[in-house]
Amino acid sequence: DPALKVFSLNSNPTLAQEIAENIGTELGKCTVTSFSDGEVQINIEESVRGCDVYVIQSTSEPVNQHIMELLIMIDALKRASARSINIVMPYYGYARQDRKARSREPITSKLVANLLQTAGASRVIMLDLHAPQIQGFFDVPIDHLVGVPLLSDYFEEKNFDDVVIVSPDHGGVTRARKMADRLKAPIAIIDKRRPRPNVSEVMNIVGNIEGKTAILIDDIIDTAGTITLAANALIENGAKEVYACCTHPVLSGPAIERIDNSKIKELVVTNTIPLKDEKRIDKITELSVGELISEAITRVHERKSISVLFD
Amino acid sequence: DPALKVFSLNSNPTLAQEIAENIGTELGKCTVTSFSDGEVQINIEESVRGCDVYVIQSTSEPVNQHIMELLIMIDALKRASARSINIVMPYYGYARQDRKARSREPITSKLVANLLQTAGASRVIMLDLHAPQIQGFFDVPIDHLVGVPLLSDYFEEKNFDDVVIVSPDHGGVTRARKMADRLKAPIAIIDKRRPRPNVSEVMNIVGNIEGKTAILIDDIIDTAGTITLAANALIENGAKEVYACCTHPVLSGPAIERIDNSKIKELVVTNTIPLKDEKRIDKITELSVGELISEAITRVHERKSISVLFD
Ligand SMILES: Nc1ncnc2c1ncn2[C@@H]1O[C@H](COP(=O)(O)O)[C@@H](O)[C@H]1O
Ligand SMILES: Nc1ncnc2c1ncn2[C@@H]1O[C@H](COP(=O)(O)O)[C@@H](O)[C@H]1O
Repeated sequence: DPALKVFSLNSNPTLAQEIAENIGTELGKCTVTSFSDGEVQINIEESVRGCDVYVIQSTSEPVNQHIMELLIMIDALKRASARSINIVMPYYGYARQDRKARSREPITSKLVANLLQTAGASRVIMLDLHAPQIQGFFDVPIDHLVGVPLLSDYFEEKNFDDVVIVSPDHGGVTRARKMADRLKAPIAIIDKRRPRPNVSEVMNIVGNIEGKTAILIDDIIDTAGTITLAANALIENGAKEVYACCTHPVLSGPAIERIDNSKIKELVVTNTIPLKDEKRIDKITELSVGELISEAITRVHERKSISVLFD
Repeated sequence: DPALKVFSLNSNPTLAQEIAENIGTELGKCTVTSFSDGEVQINIEESVRGCDVYVIQSTSEPVNQHIMELLIMIDALKRASARSINIVMPYYGYARQDRKARSREPITSKLVANLLQTAGASRVIMLDLHAPQIQGFFDVPIDHLVGVPLLSDYFEEKNFDDVVIVSPDHGGVTRARKMADRLKAPIAIIDKRRPRPNVSEVMNIVGNIEGKTAILIDDIIDTAGTITLAANALIENGAKEVYACCTHPVLSGPAIERIDNSKIKELVVTNTIPLKDEKRIDKITELSVGELISEAITRVHERKSISVLFD
């Protein structure tokens, strides 16, 4: 079988290290730095000729830097005669720009898919895409992993008495349903609506949360406005306590302050985007997707189905 | 004739304004900002349906940001039914990564060409490409403008007595020859070589510079190592005084300090990369390529040859 090599770029070095160890290999030798003028400089320091290469890179902040690093790495691997270039992208940046919500908007999510393919990606392994339709933006195989089992298992161990899984908006109900199935719990939905134009939103709760432990689940938490307002509304409406979780902790701008000041008891996230030190507060628990991704890589390399990972 | 619209992104707003005024139009309405997490957000605020659009953007520092802004803008224009998307790129970043100088290097210059075409660029107007071969990296028309006439005209007005045009390295001799033709002057070459491995370079000067005003010309001045060493060598070898010029003032890292401390009397640059305030020192004169680019855009739009601009 052709050799499997794992390379890390600059977004997730710790996760990449964990993945390499799980697979029983060492990270490929490669330096990814910048020239004096900020242009990305990549030196791959070992042969990749004929190898199946896996490159670990989230397009998290600084997103444009991370995208260009990845594209340039793919270009270098292609020209170095790698047999296949498999991109492991725990977090897919620009996922929310996936449609024209207004006239003359870009669809950056599709643009990035095209750029990856133009550079030479053979496959992309992703986790909890903001919209599953993004898979259709690619013409190469996509392996789409999900974070719900990992998050659910964490909460399962807490053995809550009476729990309800809550979607913070209409878009996230399917995800909440999946977690509820695993935890054998009911669901509720935060049903935000604006009664009239220029009147502030009303947070209506659909479903019974009274006296229950509520677990809010979302795919991305960015500025944390939605999730913290939802948490506070749940408490005001009689929930006993509120936990929250998401796969992708973008946590930009006022997010940390909002979470710290909110009624959220604990926020559980994964390391698809590693938490910077200044974002590591007591309330936030980070779980690793390392095992999930390592298993996926191994199964892909051995040409086994990965659907078993979701059962 | 279809309408011509000029849009500016974030690299060269002043130059873009000048170009729009020269052409007798206003810059297209468009905001290019960032979301809280650093993702580029573009809103084109006027119709471009059926228009010939010209987008002004250098891929100067921050290069990855500027490239992504440009690609996303092209995507938005394409989806907004622009008739043609003409990229005006006064400075083409990553131009120096135009070949595999070592094993497993990327050819980022070709990658960026592919990315621009994938996004939907119909044409690229560029200025003094680091290597003219980069034109061949594109399959869309390239209009390649040159800065030598602008720089030469500036020095012509100084009416130097006895002038010699100097190339700071072997790669720049053709450029020096072009300037020398315009100024009816002889040329000289700085012939750097390393006599033995691990021995410092020797600066040999080929050509007569004794008692003359020397004008060093290069396409890019980045960290300014080459050009300042060359200037000092010229003075040590008997040149009366040394001027220097380039089209693209990258001026990264120690560049400004080196220039300030060097024997260069005046450095003449263009605004393909606008000088940041902290880089505006007395020794540096900035010329505008605004008129050259406006003429090129007008001629392209009117389907006239642009070769006249170099005569
Ligand atoms: N990085 C971003 N931060 C905040 N909003 C975004 C971002 N990217 C796209 N959007 C907007 O978010 C909306 C889509 O979000 P959603 O409704 O959750 O799919 C669109 O209106 C986008 O313009
Ligand atoms: N942004 C950059 N800054 C400094 N050197 C670079 C940069 N990009 C590429 N190079 C290197 O510069 C060399 C090419 O420069 P040149 O010989 O002037 O064409 C190659 O060895 C490149 O690896």
